[in-house]
Parts: sequence; C-alpha cells; structure tokens
Amino acid sequence: MTDAADAADVVARLRAELGDRVDTSESARLEARADKSGHAASGLPLAVVHATSVADVQATLRIATATRTPVVTRGAGTGLAGGANAGEGEIALSMRRMDRIVEVRPDDLLAVVEPGILNADLNAALAEHGVWWAPDPASRAISTVGGNIATGAGGLLCAKYGVVRDAVLGLDLVLADGRLLRLGHRTVKGVTGLDLTSLVIGSEGTLGVVVGATLKLRRLVPGTVCTIAATFADVRSAAEASAAVTASGAQPAIMELMDAASLRAVHALLHLDPPTPGAAQLTIQTDGAAADAEADAIAAVLRATGGTVALTHDPDEGERLLTIRRSMHPAMETLGTTLIEDVSVPRSALPAMFDEIARVEREHGMPIPTVAHAGDGNLHPNFVFDGEVGADGTIEVPDAVWAAADDLFRSALRLGGTLTGEHGVGVLKRRWLADELGDDQWVLQRQITRVFDPLGILNPGKVFAA
Amino acid sequence: MTDAADAADVVARLRAELGDRVDTSESARLEARADKSGHAASGLPLAVVHATSVADVQATLRIATATRTPVVTRGAGTGLAGGANAGEGEIALSMRRMDRIVEVRPDDLLAVVEPGILNADLNAALAEHGVWWAPDPASRAISTVGGNIATGAGGLLCAKYGVVRDAVLGLDLVLADGRLLRLGHRTVKGVTGLDLTSLVIGSEGTLGVVVGATLKLRRLVPGTVCTIAATFADVRSAAEASAAVTASGAQPAIMELMDAASLRAVHALLHLDPPTPGAAQLTIQTDGAAADAEADAIAAVLRATGGTVALTHDPDEGERLLTIRRSMHPAMETLGTTLIEDVSVPRSALPAMFDEIARVEREHGMPIPTVAHAGDGNLHPNFVFDGEVGADGTIEVPDAVWAAADDLFRSALRLGGTLTGEHGVGVLKRRWLADELGDDQWVLQRQITRVFDPLGILNPGKVFAA
Repeated sequence: MTDAADAADVVARLRAELGDRVDTSESARLEARADKSGHAASGLPLAVVHATSVADVQATLRIATATRTPVVTRGAGTGLAGGANAGEGEIALSMRRMDRIVEVRPDDLLAVVEPGILNADLNAALAEHGVWWAPDPASRAISTVGGNIATGAGGLLCAKYGVVRDAVLGLDLVLADGRLLRLGHRTVKGVTGLDLTSLVIGSEGTLGVVVGATLKLRRLVPGTVCTIAATFADVRSAAEASAAVTASGAQPAIMELMDAASLRAVHALLHLDPPTPGAAQLTIQTDGAAADAEADAIAAVLRATGGTVALTHDPDEGERLLTIRRSMHPAMETLGTTLIEDVSVPRSALPAMFDEIARVEREHGMPIPTVAHAGDGNLHPNFVFDGEVGADGTIEVPDAVWAAADDLFRSALRLGGTLTGEHGVGVLKRRWLADELGDDQWVLQRQITRVFDPLGILNPGKVFAA
Repeated sequence: MTDAADAADVVARLRAELGDRVDTSESARLEARADKSGHAASGLPLAVVHATSVADVQATLRIATATRTPVVTRGAGTGLAGGANAGEGEIALSMRRMDRIVEVRPDDLLAVVEPGILNADLNAALAEHGVWWAPDPASRAISTVGGNIATGAGGLLCAKYGVVRDAVLGLDLVLADGRLLRLGHRTVKGVTGLDLTSLVIGSEGTLGVVVGATLKLRRLVPGTVCTIAATFADVRSAAEASAAVTASGAQPAIMELMDAASLRAVHALLHLDPPTPGAAQLTIQTDGAAADAEADAIAAVLRATGGTVALTHDPDEGERLLTIRRSMHPAMETLGTTLIEDVSVPRSALPAMFDEIARVEREHGMPIPTVAHAGDGNLHPNFVFDGEVGADGTIEVPDAVWAAADDLFRSALRLGGTLTGEHGVGVLKRRWLADELGDDQWVLQRQITRVFDPLGILNPGKVFAA
C-alpha cells in the first residue's frame, strides 16, 4: 500500500512514460474495482493503465517494481471470483486494448494473438480460415482470451474439446520487474525444460502479465449438429442419466443439466408454460461425422433411464432448445441476488453431489438453483439471497450464505471434487484453497509465485492470501 | 558427492530402513548407470533402491536429505537423453516394482496407477474395460508410465490423441525431504491454484518422485483402421505431401515419414526388394467412424502431390505396412553406432527442416537417416558414425557428431522448432537448453527446481547443469 504522496509520484511516473494511456478518471477506477461476481475491492486503484504494446506493460511493471506498487492485470472484467479487482494503492493494468490477431496459421493449426481480444471476436475471425479455438466459457462474447488464460477457463464443450490448458502452446510473459520471457513452443510436441506455459495458465495474474499467446486451434467440425432435450422426474434422475450417457461411451459436444428451480425460473422469464413441478432437464448436442448416430444412441440411453426425450436434427430448433440453458443467468437475476458457485466432481459423483446440494438447501434454509456442465462434472450452484446491490453495483454476501457455500465446498471435496472447475480462486475462494491443496502444497505454490515476483507486487491478496 | 566413509554410512542407513530392497550388486549398479541412449554416467551409484511403496520412497528421500546424497529416479531405463543415469555417489531409486493399477474408472474415464507399470501392460489391462491411455511412445512395450510422465513422452498418435501432458489429471509427488504432495484433480475441470501436475510432467526427476498418477483415459476407438503407404521421388516431396495432408483438414491417427536412407536400411534388414533410389515414404493410418472416407480423402491429396499410393482396409496388411516403420531402430543398428535426435518443428516447416538435414549431411560429411512423426512435426534424425560400443554397452559420441547435431538443433530453432519433442533434455542436451529458453527463463526454471529441492539432491547435473 502506498501513501498519498507516493501515490502521486507513481501516477506521475506512469504519466511521464505512458501519457494518456494512464487513466485516473473516477469512472475508470470505479469500474476496475469490480467484476461480474458483484464483489469489489476496497478503495479505488491509483490509475488504470490502458496498455497498447508490450513496451507499455514493461514500462508499467518497471515503475511498479521501482515503487513497490501492486499491479492488478485485467481483461474485460467478466471474472466471477474477484481475481482482477483492483483497490486502494494498486495499479489496474488493462490489457483490453491489446487485441490484435498477430498471425493465423491454419496449416499449423495455431494462432498468435494479443491477450485483450474477445474470445468470440477471435473465433469469428478464425472461422474465415476454417479453424476455431475450443475454449468456450459462457462469457465468450464478452471475455478476453487473456482472461480465459488467467483463469484457466472452461465452458460447455470441455468434455469433448478440452479446456484452456489443452489449447495453448506458448505464452509471452512480462515478469514483475519488466523482463519479457517467451514460454512454450510453436510445435505440437516440445519438452525442453519445465512447462511454464501450463503453470501460468490459471495463475490469475500472480506470476506475470501475459502479453501474447500462441494458441492451439482445431478445424471447424464438419457435419450437422443434433440437439436433444430430455426431461426427468427429478434432478437425481437427470444426473444419473447424464452419468449413464458418459458411461455408455457416447461423447456429446454439450451436455447441460438444469434442476427444477432453474428450469422454473427460465420458463417464467421466457414466458413459457411452467415445467412439471420437480422436473429437471438435460440438453445435449452431438456434432461431427457421426452426430446423427450418436444422438440416436444417446436418446436410447436417456429413454432407458426414464427420460422424456425430444430430438431434433434442425439447427434452428436446436438453438431454441439451448436458449433455455443460455437464459439461466438472466433468470437467476429475477430471483434475487446470487452467488454463483463452481464446484466440479468426477462425473459418476454428479447424482451424489445433487443430493448434497439438496441437503445444504434443507439444512441452511436457502434455495440453490443449479445448472451443471454434466458432460464434465462441473456444477454452478446459485446461492440466491435477499441482498442489497450497492450504488456501485457491488454486493455483500451474507455470512449465512458463505456458511452454506462452505458446507457445499466440503461436500465436493469429499466426493473427490474441487472448489473451482473454471472460475478460479480470486478473493472469493482463497480461504478454502489450503483445504484442497493441503498446507504443504499451499506453501510450495506460494514460494513458486515468489520466484516470479520476489516483491509480491503481482495481484497481492488474490488466490493465496489467507 | 559423498566420500567413501559417508557412502558406507548412507548404504547402512538405507539398509536399516529398507532391508533387501537396497541392492548393491555390481550388476544392478552397472545397469543403473545407462539408458537406451548409450550414454552412461561416470562411476557407479552407491546402491539401487527397489521401492515397493510410497513409504519406501519417503524413507529413501529422508535419508538422502539427511546425508545430502543425490537421488536419481529410474523407471525401466529406456530413456534416450541420459536423464535417469545414476553415477558416482548417487542413489538410484528404481520405481519399477511399484507397478500396481490401483483403480480403473471407465465411467469417469480415469485410472490411478503406480509409476512402475509398463505403458503396454497398462493398456492391455485397460482394454478389458473398453478404455486406453493415449500416450504411445515407440518404447511403450518396455517403458514405464512414470518414465513417460518424467519425460513428457509423445509417440506416433499425438497429433490426434495428444501427448502425456494432455493425459494426466493428477500426480502424487514425494518431495526431496520425503513429504508427500497430492497434485491435481480427479475431475475434468479444476483450477484451484497453480497447475503443478503439468509442471512435474517432463521435469525429468528434478522436482520430486512421482509415486502415483491419476490418468485421463479415452474410450477405445470403434470402427476399422485404414492404412496408406505412399512413395515419393524424394524426401522433400514426401514432407510437402504430409504438410498438405495436415493442411487439408484430415486428421490421421498416424502419419510417419521415412527418408531414402532409412527406407533402404529397413528394406535390407527385412530382405525386401531395394526401394527406388532416393524415394521416401509416408505411412498413414486413419481410425474411428469416418476412417474409410478420411483414408480416401488423404489418398487423393497424396496422389495430387505426386505420390504413388497403396491403400488397404485390411488390418493385417496395414500392420505389415507399418512394420517397415517399426523396423527403423533395428535397421539403424546395422549401419553403425547412432545418436538418435529428436527435434520438432511446426508442421509447415517439415520440408524446410529436411532441406536443413540434407545441408548438414553435406557440410559435415555424415549420413543422417531420418524418420519423422510427420503428423506432429517431430523428427528423429539418426547420426550414424563408426563408434566403439564399450564393454559396458555404452558409447562415446565423437565431437564431430555433436558439431553436426549442434548445427541441426540451431536450424530447428530458427524454423520455430524445439530441441526435443519427446525424449527430454537429460544430460545429452543440457548444453543447448539456454539457447532455446533464453538465459532469463533458464535461471527462473532453475530457481523453481530449488523451491521443490532446496539442497539440489534430485537428479543433479541433469537438464539444467551447464
């Protein structure tokens, strides 16, 4: 933390090097405090630096090191764990303007990009070359590739097409002291030294600033997409059916599960007839050369497990069915204030995890509408509460909600799962990190961050702080 | 290094805790000096510890830490870079007897295994469950899963099915001081803290001892396998054809390239008619639901690029065609002593890399028969020389060969490639490591190893030593 005189000096130094890329407007500094979790840092950052080049990032970090000023790197601010929120005495380093596509090589199935490009913008450009970058967080229209890398993002397609760490070949990283490292390879295979590319993926701004990424691409998937919607009497049956689909050997591109409360809220939002009380739904898509046959096989599994199945080969009708899943977040907003959680369990444990969610709802007396990426075992329980959204758009999560979340996290860990499948630790989950890692590993990870950042100026208080 | 009196003390301490799992026979110690590269460490290790449990590994490392004795972890000794060779004053810690399959979960597509199991034995057992572990180094019948993890192994199927780092969910790691850490997840998604699982993969025994692995499995691929053999007038044409196949969007399971010298040697070994002088060959397999259609499309690309194409849908005939590729190493042994290299380049650079190999052959006046995993851009140039194989089975690579290899490595780096695609750095490539990483990254990686191993007792002199 820097006192007032020092703060003025830091801003003056930044301005001397970076001119009008240093933004001290109140609106920019207010925006940099928060993300889509609703959580906000205390106080306002000193300034927002809008980097437009690697040299800008290096200059910012040299000044930060010289003045011992914390730096919080940000993309589009769509995080759900508070990991990129900048507060009192900190520099918010925005990468949003570094959004160029430097190179696309369909022949080598790679692209080199700057981190500030939006995931959806990148994929629109790649489609012209017949390729795509597979990570597809639900936020892809509004989140940056750099943010996806910082959190190790997932999405809907992960069971079939992988997560971010499966889709990055190399990273250019500026260290806390301003030095630039080039990590990884442009090749499919490469085992020279330690795999620092993977280490940086999901490190949430604690190891350095990603200023360039060499991405591993896939060919656009040819053929049709088939969509299945299947309704079950209750959520446990739907979860068992999704586990049966996975166990059958089918590989859907998408397999999403919505529980009764989620379904009810979405139907109300979209002015659809109310669903059967208690009913839960699976929405499944198959793609590729065998999409039709695979959809038929999956439909048979779903019927055998008691589902009422609708199957369409029509893309428009398929998109309409998926709209119900995609309307989850707006529907939650109609119910109250929400804390969106992100546990992940082995796929066979999905039914047991839904039992645990029902138990937590009962014991803590609060509704927890839940959707799951059932194809990969990642659940998003939404803790709904009567909370005030502050004037600055931020929320305060009541202790009773955290107590229920704590109960849920421990259930996920007991079932062989993890605290966070794709949102990251940020500030919201740091107090549970050592529960999952164990104290020895927590300390060792902390020491590794210090190799990259000896002064501890990179995103302090995030991930590892107790 | 430990002097004679200390050495006796270390062995005595090991024996007191581990009894007859401590092997001081000359034969065991001689064997632990070398790997399949032909390189051997100087001197003999103090002892070979045949660990049979996690507790054995922890006991060994506690004694090693207390006595500051270096530990070299070994699997089956099939490495090609000298990375697991144990010498004077060192403990060789063999994991070969820890070879149990602890758990197979086809429903969750994961298995938990001990590191000493052979890759092929694991896959034989997994096949009964309808699943497999995709990494398939050519050594899979004789190499351990732990060794595959330590080197970050690749193989023939990588372009389609991934390398080791795509196929491991979690690792149990014993640190230099004997503490046990559990890294990673049992879930498809998981982003709690730093991805230490990926960091350990390919770290060649410098970070800890892997005592358990949670592996990510795939369903056995249904359907037929189609095999294509295509002959080209010269190696450059074959390389261009392979790049054209990749660029066409086809995804063969296997795409192997053999140059004229390799083909000639294999034909001689197998008593086949000599190939057309100068001719090079691609051997390609397609699999899965669309295998037939994909094989036809690939054959069309190969014919359009000037290849003479044979295509079979018969598995036996396909296996016969692949035998030619599989006979490469025995064929090389008929030519002289070989140094097997392992550069990797972006796939579009394969033709240029073959030009470079031809240049190095000319300028250094030595034959370099080369095979390539053309589907992923990984080449194995074989430097053939008149070398003596010593009484202990080890070889001395002449300086002139290293000079040619140096020239070749620099060409690969210039083409956007890497020193080692799948064999690792070990001792044989450590002097080039900083050329690829840059000095800053080299130092930072070295510092990371010290977080895991503050005393520097884990595989000293490997990977990072100058």
